[in-house]
Amino acid sequence: DIIYVETHDDQETVANTFKKYGFMALPVVDREHRLTGIITFDDIMTVIEDEATEDLQRMAAMVPSEESYLNSGVFQLAKMRLPWLLIFMLGASVTGSIITKFESLLSTYVVLTMFIPMLMNTGGNSGNQSSTLIIRGLATEDVSLEDAGKVLWKEFRISLVVGIVLATVNFAKNMLIDRVGLQVSLTVSATVALIIVLAIMVGGLLPLLAKKLKLDPAIMAGPLITTLVDGLTLMVYFGLASVLLI
Amino acid sequence: DIIYVETHDDQETVANTFKKYGFMALPVVDREHRLTGIITFDDIMTVIEDEATEDLQRMAAMVPSEESYLNSGVFQLAKMRLPWLLIFMLGASVTGSIITKFESLLSTYVVLTMFIPMLMNTGGNSGNQSSTLIIRGLATEDVSLEDAGKVLWKEFRISLVVGIVLATVNFAKNMLIDRVGLQVSLTVSATVALIIVLAIMVGGLLPLLAKKLKLDPAIMAGPLITTLVDGLTLMVYFGLASVLLI
Repeated sequence: DIIYVETHDDQETVANTFKKYGFMALPVVDREHRLTGIITFDDIMTVIEDEATEDLQRMAAMVPSEESYLNSGVFQLAKMRLPWLLIFMLGASVTGSIITKFESLLSTYVVLTMFIPMLMNTGGNSGNQSSTLIIRGLATEDVSLEDAGKVLWKEFRISLVVGIVLATVNFAKNMLIDRVGLQVSLTVSATVALIIVLAIMVGGLLPLLAKKLKLDPAIMAGPLITTLVDGLTLMVYFGLASVLLI
Repeated sequence: DIIYVETHDDQETVANTFKKYGFMALPVVDREHRLTGIITFDDIMTVIEDEATEDLQRMAAMVPSEESYLNSGVFQLAKMRLPWLLIFMLGASVTGSIITKFESLLSTYVVLTMFIPMLMNTGGNSGNQSSTLIIRGLATEDVSLEDAGKVLWKEFRISLVVGIVLATVNFAKNMLIDRVGLQVSLTVSATVALIIVLAIMVGGLLPLLAKKLKLDPAIMAGPLITTLVDGLTLMVYFGLASVLLI
């Protein structure tokens, strides 16, 4: 068998072929499999690095740029950052409006407000860890779309372990340090466990879904996950509080 | 001049030397500059990719692992994620306790609560974008420690552009859609502008500081920035509200 790459292949695919075989150069062929040139390892080193940079920029909600940081102007760098910041700023307003729906609950149990940042933070971080691992796995072809079932089942079991550990630590802290009483401690800890499971599943599922839809999985990262999980967190928290406290 | 790498060089440094010169192989010498072997481009492709993966895992608050995702067990993957999740969960409690300090302000101006998720989200995202660019720039040697002054001055000007744009959009939304009145709209929008400047400066400064202290800049990313910025956001918000509303 002859190993080759095609003129229309994505540069990430070409880089993965190089890594797989360790060759110094590969033939490039057109759609009729006619040789059109060769590509060498030194081109590929730059590609591997540029692809990682591009993924990172997407994951931090930036419009990717190939220009080096020091050579980019202030407005050019601002333009990379503004579109998604604006979208997420407006998106997060939805999260805020959930709070206003539960104003009466919050005014009865003022102590609940105190745990909102911790819950949103923990949910966002758990989902972020999961999506980062899957996005990177898909980019390096360590994980493929056929593994989706296996990945989600693994993430689910991980989420149970992580959820139980964090909920237990939180429960001890709520009871012994915050001293907020059994009912509130149970509400907050149950939210911790539940939101970790949900966040990890969202973080695992979205990159796979993006891949399936032929979008770049790197867009399903940190800021998007955080915004979604923030909303989920408040709904779970106020939902559980409505049941457990009233 | 002979280009070589040393046995004690970090693999990231070696990868950067390869990229710089595009050689197929480089001599490796010991501390007395005696030849101990050679290193070839195919080793380096793996290194470039592994380093990017490691940085990504650190940036998502995970303990880096070289094991492939599918070959790692559930408990192994949970163990990568738990330490930082626990630390940030406890760290975010501090943020929560800031809220309790301003309970009376919040009960007078209940509407303020509604904007907390949006403010924390926007601050976290802005800081995250900035830290991602600087961390990546340091890793690829596109940015060096000597550029610190230039980088921070650039980030400051970017933060003014981003801050003014987002604050303006937010002000229009507060007045026309949320209809929360001039005073609250001004308070929220001034917080947006101020927290973006602070978050971008924190996001730009911390990776440079880590590099200076010979730590991996990748630890100064998303989750840490988010936790710090969440606290800053609440202090700025309640501080401004105390001045502008009462």
